[in-house]
Amino acid sequence: MRTLEEARALDAADPLRGLRDAFDLPDGEIYLDGNSLGALPRATIARMTETIRGEWGRDLIRSWNKAGWIEAPARVGGKIAQLIGAKPHEVLVADSTSVNLYKLLAAAVKARPGRRVILSEPGNFPTDLYVAQGVAEALDVELRLAPREAIVDALDEDVAVLLLTHVHYRSAVTFDMAAVTRAAQEKGALVLWDLSHSAGAVAVDLNAANADLAAGCGYKYLNGGPGAPAFLFVAERHQAMLRSPLSGWMGHAAPFDFDDDYAPGEGIARFLCGTPPILGIAALEEGVDMLLGTDREALYAKGQALCSAFIDLVEHRCAGLGVTLATPRDPSLRGSHVSFRHDHGWPIMQALIARGVIGDFRAPDILRFGFTPLYVGFEDLWRAVDILRDILATEAWDEPAFRARAAVT
Amino acid sequence: MRTLEEARALDAADPLRGLRDAFDLPDGEIYLDGNSLGALPRATIARMTETIRGEWGRDLIRSWNKAGWIEAPARVGGKIAQLIGAKPHEVLVADSTSVNLYKLLAAAVKARPGRRVILSEPGNFPTDLYVAQGVAEALDVELRLAPREAIVDALDEDVAVLLLTHVHYRSAVTFDMAAVTRAAQEKGALVLWDLSHSAGAVAVDLNAANADLAAGCGYKYLNGGPGAPAFLFVAERHQAMLRSPLSGWMGHAAPFDFDDDYAPGEGIARFLCGTPPILGIAALEEGVDMLLGTDREALYAKGQALCSAFIDLVEHRCAGLGVTLATPRDPSLRGSHVSFRHDHGWPIMQALIARGVIGDFRAPDILRFGFTPLYVGFEDLWRAVDILRDILATEAWDEPAFRARAAVT
Repeated sequence: MRTLEEARALDAADPLRGLRDAFDLPDGEIYLDGNSLGALPRATIARMTETIRGEWGRDLIRSWNKAGWIEAPARVGGKIAQLIGAKPHEVLVADSTSVNLYKLLAAAVKARPGRRVILSEPGNFPTDLYVAQGVAEALDVELRLAPREAIVDALDEDVAVLLLTHVHYRSAVTFDMAAVTRAAQEKGALVLWDLSHSAGAVAVDLNAANADLAAGCGYKYLNGGPGAPAFLFVAERHQAMLRSPLSGWMGHAAPFDFDDDYAPGEGIARFLCGTPPILGIAALEEGVDMLLGTDREALYAKGQALCSAFIDLVEHRCAGLGVTLATPRDPSLRGSHVSFRHDHGWPIMQALIARGVIGDFRAPDILRFGFTPLYVGFEDLWRAVDILRDILATEAWDEPAFRARAAVT
Repeated sequence: MRTLEEARALDAADPLRGLRDAFDLPDGEIYLDGNSLGALPRATIARMTETIRGEWGRDLIRSWNKAGWIEAPARVGGKIAQLIGAKPHEVLVADSTSVNLYKLLAAAVKARPGRRVILSEPGNFPTDLYVAQGVAEALDVELRLAPREAIVDALDEDVAVLLLTHVHYRSAVTFDMAAVTRAAQEKGALVLWDLSHSAGAVAVDLNAANADLAAGCGYKYLNGGPGAPAFLFVAERHQAMLRSPLSGWMGHAAPFDFDDDYAPGEGIARFLCGTPPILGIAALEEGVDMLLGTDREALYAKGQALCSAFIDLVEHRCAGLGVTLATPRDPSLRGSHVSFRHDHGWPIMQALIARGVIGDFRAPDILRFGFTPLYVGFEDLWRAVDILRDILATEAWDEPAFRARAAVT
């Protein structure tokens, strides 16, 4: 795809094209940041009105039973399970990704007594490493890092749990989930997969990979809204063995008996902690429902096609302008975003945003573009590259206004 | 207050009466459960539309900076600080009460090396005890329970942290925060106060009590909505010393540098963990703003007057019908809810709810009525007691339909 006409032809032939109208997207912008914050589904607007005015305002406390609030973490978890190849009772919506990583890492370390290492890779998403450091300090074990190409060799009898992100947040490169899981299990370790950049973006089959544990984010490709609740997965075979350190009342076997003694709930329920965030879960459910109503094979294929077309077009039209691909060319080895390096990544991204192309920047030099096939089309992509080429060729990014750093990048 | 006319006269003279119209309350019901789920402020409806359609839908990722999403935990925390006698930079909105209790308890235990006891009382709110058990197991310390009348005597050199709830969730009885804090500090222990049934309901002055740590709930008297984010308080003098075990990226000194190594943020910021739940925080901010715009001295006085009038009226009109007061008569010793025991508490509460009087039941035999002075009036209270008397006198509660237990009580 090299021309605007070709892009339009691809859009015209795209069976998923109509889904764009299911989102409330601003006019005149090309949103390539759905991997950081997914767009607003129109259905969510009506759902939130009903949840706020009907369930909260009118039915008040009764909605815990009547509107199914109390089952919401398991209900929406069961839906997410369908997106990641898990059984419905293996997934819960709860807390944030970071808090869920803490629960699962701590539970895994306790389940492997005598093993004193959490293994991960340098450059993993920061919160994964930070939470692992917190668990290591709390439980007096060690966080060991090994480069991804050496990660399997770094597995030994000391490793309690291997913590990896399936799709890397910068490069989009994926791990072979089944192969790495097998290698870790052969050494007696558990594996915890962070699916934040995977769920809703690429095919994930946790059960086929014989996965142990996973967690992930609700506000990226699941379109659950800013700071949406996260999810966690515990394989059925491990549920009775694992205990969440965050033993709050919603994870109790009988929370409304108000006993003094904690008794972990059956199955996955023990990984709940506090009162579920109903507004956030309601918004997340709408995003998940939209994905469940979509042909996901076609969706993931379109995501790959968008990424491939973007790589090709940037390398063709921006050749010699200082951008270097930082994402695998092979679609089977990457997620649904594409990163390019440029020495002036920050001001270039600000210049793009000023011209309506919304991607994001990741320190020190990454221009990151997410392709959410639900609402991004090939013409969007063509226009984005056209603007990028212009900004690079004219050095329009070289303005003081584009150099100022914001709190959130 | 014994008659409907007297009740109406009290309402007519109530300077806070107009605040009821600021809530979207269902017609024909008397809502005495604001201590379990606060009602919906009308302002929240418009705020959520703007947050969802404007900030999320239109401005998308830019809202992290433009709409102040990234500062929301500290901004709303700073507002809650005004309600609980804290400095603005001593309070954060984050996670759930249970998760915050875990952070603070674990941090407190680590800050008192050599001390191996978390002290609390039997019958404390279940999640407080459950979380303390989780911390005790994770950090290999002991949870010790002592009855509240013996709690000060149970303080010794082994106690790292004393965990108490300021207003008890069943009886509404309060601890003398300043006196208990002083006694614990004299023994070298830290004190963690659960303010879930206090914040927005009764006067709380953490700084005047020289409090160390506190946490509390956003969905009760703060009217933040179902499963609203919670808050936590760390006294300024302890902030540099304490480390949250939940060392997620939002608590990092520079989260958007994406370093591999965790470095705790300055001050209270280190007690953040994952990405803040923006929809929940937005709703909570509206509830808090309403309280900040209200004469709180008058508000708390009205809450006490409502509770006293309710106790008097129930004891007068329901005498001999099996109800026994389970809350202190002295307003200075209780929060803003009133509990009565009855052997048939569950079906009686279901019969009340069926007739539009919404309170709640707490096992095994507590009928609990919360008085939120923002939207409950004296006529409401008179009518509620009139219906209660009728249900008790006629034994209208003695129906199979009222005996069925729901998942959430």
